[in-house]
Amino acid sequence: MQTRTAVSEFLGTLLLVFFAVGAAVLCVDYIGTLGIALAFGFVLLALAYALGPISGCHINPAVTLGMLMARRIDVRTAVTYWIAQFLGGIAGAALLFLLAKQVPGLKTSGKFGSNGYGDRSDVHINLGGAFLAEVVLTFLLVFVVLAVTHKVAVVGFDGLPIGISLAVIHLVGIPLTGTSVNPARSLGPALFAGGAALSQLWLFIVAPLVGGILAALAHRLTHPSMRGGETAAEV
Amino acid sequence: MQTRTAVSEFLGTLLLVFFAVGAAVLCVDYIGTLGIALAFGFVLLALAYALGPISGCHINPAVTLGMLMARRIDVRTAVTYWIAQFLGGIAGAALLFLLAKQVPGLKTSGKFGSNGYGDRSDVHINLGGAFLAEVVLTFLLVFVVLAVTHKVAVVGFDGLPIGISLAVIHLVGIPLTGTSVNPARSLGPALFAGGAALSQLWLFIVAPLVGGILAALAHRLTHPSMRGGETAAEV
Amino acid sequence: MQTRTAVSEFLGTLLLVFFAVGAAVLCVDYIGTLGIALAFGFVLLALAYALGPISGCHINPAVTLGMLMARRIDVRTAVTYWIAQFLGGIAGAALLFLLAKQVPGLKTSGKFGSNGYGDRSDVHINLGGAFLAEVVLTFLLVFVVLAVTHKVAVVGFDGLPIGISLAVIHLVGIPLTGTSVNPARSLGPALFAGGAALSQLWLFIVAPLVGGILAALAHRLTHPSMRGGETAAEV
Amino acid sequence: MQTRTAVSEFLGTLLLVFFAVGAAVLCVDYIGTLGIALAFGFVLLALAYALGPISGCHINPAVTLGMLMARRIDVRTAVTYWIAQFLGGIAGAALLFLLAKQVPGLKTSGKFGSNGYGDRSDVHINLGGAFLAEVVLTFLLVFVVLAVTHKVAVVGFDGLPIGISLAVIHLVGIPLTGTSVNPARSLGPALFAGGAALSQLWLFIVAPLVGGILAALAHRLTHPSMRGGETAAEV
Repeated sequence: MQTRTAVSEFLGTLLLVFFAVGAAVLCVDYIGTLGIALAFGFVLLALAYALGPISGCHINPAVTLGMLMARRIDVRTAVTYWIAQFLGGIAGAALLFLLAKQVPGLKTSGKFGSNGYGDRSDVHINLGGAFLAEVVLTFLLVFVVLAVTHKVAVVGFDGLPIGISLAVIHLVGIPLTGTSVNPARSLGPALFAGGAALSQLWLFIVAPLVGGILAALAHRLTHPSMRGGETAAEV
Repeated sequence: MQTRTAVSEFLGTLLLVFFAVGAAVLCVDYIGTLGIALAFGFVLLALAYALGPISGCHINPAVTLGMLMARRIDVRTAVTYWIAQFLGGIAGAALLFLLAKQVPGLKTSGKFGSNGYGDRSDVHINLGGAFLAEVVLTFLLVFVVLAVTHKVAVVGFDGLPIGISLAVIHLVGIPLTGTSVNPARSLGPALFAGGAALSQLWLFIVAPLVGGILAALAHRLTHPSMRGGETAAEV
Repeated sequence: MQTRTAVSEFLGTLLLVFFAVGAAVLCVDYIGTLGIALAFGFVLLALAYALGPISGCHINPAVTLGMLMARRIDVRTAVTYWIAQFLGGIAGAALLFLLAKQVPGLKTSGKFGSNGYGDRSDVHINLGGAFLAEVVLTFLLVFVVLAVTHKVAVVGFDGLPIGISLAVIHLVGIPLTGTSVNPARSLGPALFAGGAALSQLWLFIVAPLVGGILAALAHRLTHPSMRGGETAAEV
Repeated sequence: MQTRTAVSEFLGTLLLVFFAVGAAVLCVDYIGTLGIALAFGFVLLALAYALGPISGCHINPAVTLGMLMARRIDVRTAVTYWIAQFLGGIAGAALLFLLAKQVPGLKTSGKFGSNGYGDRSDVHINLGGAFLAEVVLTFLLVFVVLAVTHKVAVVGFDGLPIGISLAVIHLVGIPLTGTSVNPARSLGPALFAGGAALSQLWLFIVAPLVGGILAALAHRLTHPSMRGGETAAEV
């Protein structure tokens, strides 16, 4: 079972990065910010229904951290998920890199769907603003995930709000930072973009995790605690 | 329980204003009117599934008024919700203001996602037109909320039509008034925009409430009355 | 009960025309063809969940004709629905006309969201092409409605595909004819547009009905017949 | 029963090609790449709920191949489906061709919604890149279909992620190859486009099938095998 869930998290993160970051890298001139935002939300919605029954479809270390804090998974599962997610993000970016090389004239270094602040942000948001943005953007995602997978929610209506929340998060966040809200989504592309993408990477790992922690704390204020012993696959 | 519902309404309204008004303030040049309309609808859809089981996720004084008239909640709950919603709207606008200040060159006064008519409307709609528009736009939202949370509706299929109706309401209303349909969504941004935004604010409080009242009346024509004693959390 | 269903069809058609045709009349410069298509689909999705349990939410004479042919409703109900739908469409167009008059410089005659062919079509499609287009476009809508409200379908998953199918129908049809697929949606705006809109109106009443008939026939090839005695409210 | 399922696959593929390829052929100047991507996803979503209970609504030979490999259908059913799908795709393209001829000045040869690489790709992707793209794009579709129709998934939540995944696949793939991921969708338009569309057609038949095979293999890693004896109509 543990193997299936790890494969699920690896493959899900790979596909999330390939399709959503791929929309940004390959198609921004054709679909714009709106299209990229929908690509992120739509692929997560689809994967949530495909992989949710297997691993919970976190495919995001900040979501896994929130699930850990809400005691829906144990530490061992969280660590397994984190490893699978980061490896999946790198593999997805590598596959995208390989594909992008087949498009004549496409520049793969420098940006390549990585996140950024300052002069690497469309609106030149400063470091503090980027940190604040990523915290609040991630807060919405993890808060929604924890709430709609809670026992008080109606079964089945989880992937829809989760995917749709990621779309709105990108509608707001793409001009600011390119939107991370997911350390695994940020790591892979930054490795291929290189340079300043790597030196700014820390923010897009730390701030989403802070957002996930705050969401788990807020979740305790709005939702009653669930009985223990539930594993990720039951979420 | 009352505390959880109040926190739910406060936090929900905060997030609605931060994300949806934030899309307008920060990203209009990137996502256009269509993207802003989707941001409003998408964030409400996500929050409806996240907070619906807790407080009903009104996050809108006009919805709460409609629920009160339909006898789904009592006066005490309504007043608690209204306070939480207005405070949440102000807090969401304040957080957005703080973030917007981190974007070099972004103008935060004057408009800041506030609603308007006359020369503060994209199409220069007059006062009477703005009032009529807000009444009809709000009518759809509150009518849909009352209907899809009625006992004749299929469980779970509430957040989807509610969020999607808010999207279409904004597709029509953004060029007219910026679309309020929610006094709490209008108050917060107007406080930060200042000037004419404040002097026109009354319309975006009164007209949505009138729309909510008319929706509750129309609801009685289409739907049978529900037995009493149901609290918001059961809706 | 008959009164509730008639009010439901009247009000639903009114809101469909006001919001969807309203998006075209008031906001085309802001949301484009894509936004108008989403407005049609989104408002139908919302209304389907709001009014479906009451009247089936046909709000379209071609849908009602298909339902009659599939023996889901009787002739008396169909006639009641048709009257309510046409009156609702006129009322919705009248309300939109009243609102549009409050926007300085907005031209309300000539087009006003009416359908057209020849030089009244964006792509100048000829009469035969317009007729063919409306038949096939309506076919999809009525075929989907009949199928997803059939007993083999999963309860609740009707408003979503119905609304989404109307969106795709408009993505294809707006440049061709402005997309009718609904005689009641066409009549109201044509009355206010006047002139050639009225002389071309017959096509947008006849062709959608032909499409609805063909859909009901095709439905018999794909779906087993349902036992009689089911009323619209049970669909 | 076999007749109903064959008619379902024929009609579904016909409607998919007419509406989705029709959006590209008739409306690209009005709705852009984003609108075309939504047209593909939306029409599949609607058809999945309309025809899913009858034939499973594969309407795509690569999906049928994946279902065969996952032992959800037998070879006889697969062959029947493939024939119905290819005939449906040709019929849909023929109906679209007939309609397009009624639009003055519309060019129907050369492109006509067919897929392509090299100088027939918007971004001039090379042959290897096009093959890789189609394999990965199809992988997502078939993987999602197999997963959300698996017994571990919540009943009803299949058409939504399936349709939405096709939308995101087109957001990424349209600029690359026009997006096939469906040999039946590619054959019909290529027959009417003629010339280079036909000489490149092989790739858009082979690569999607390879993607479907890989998806079925990956499915075995994430999902437990289902007991045999289930027919397509039960999926």
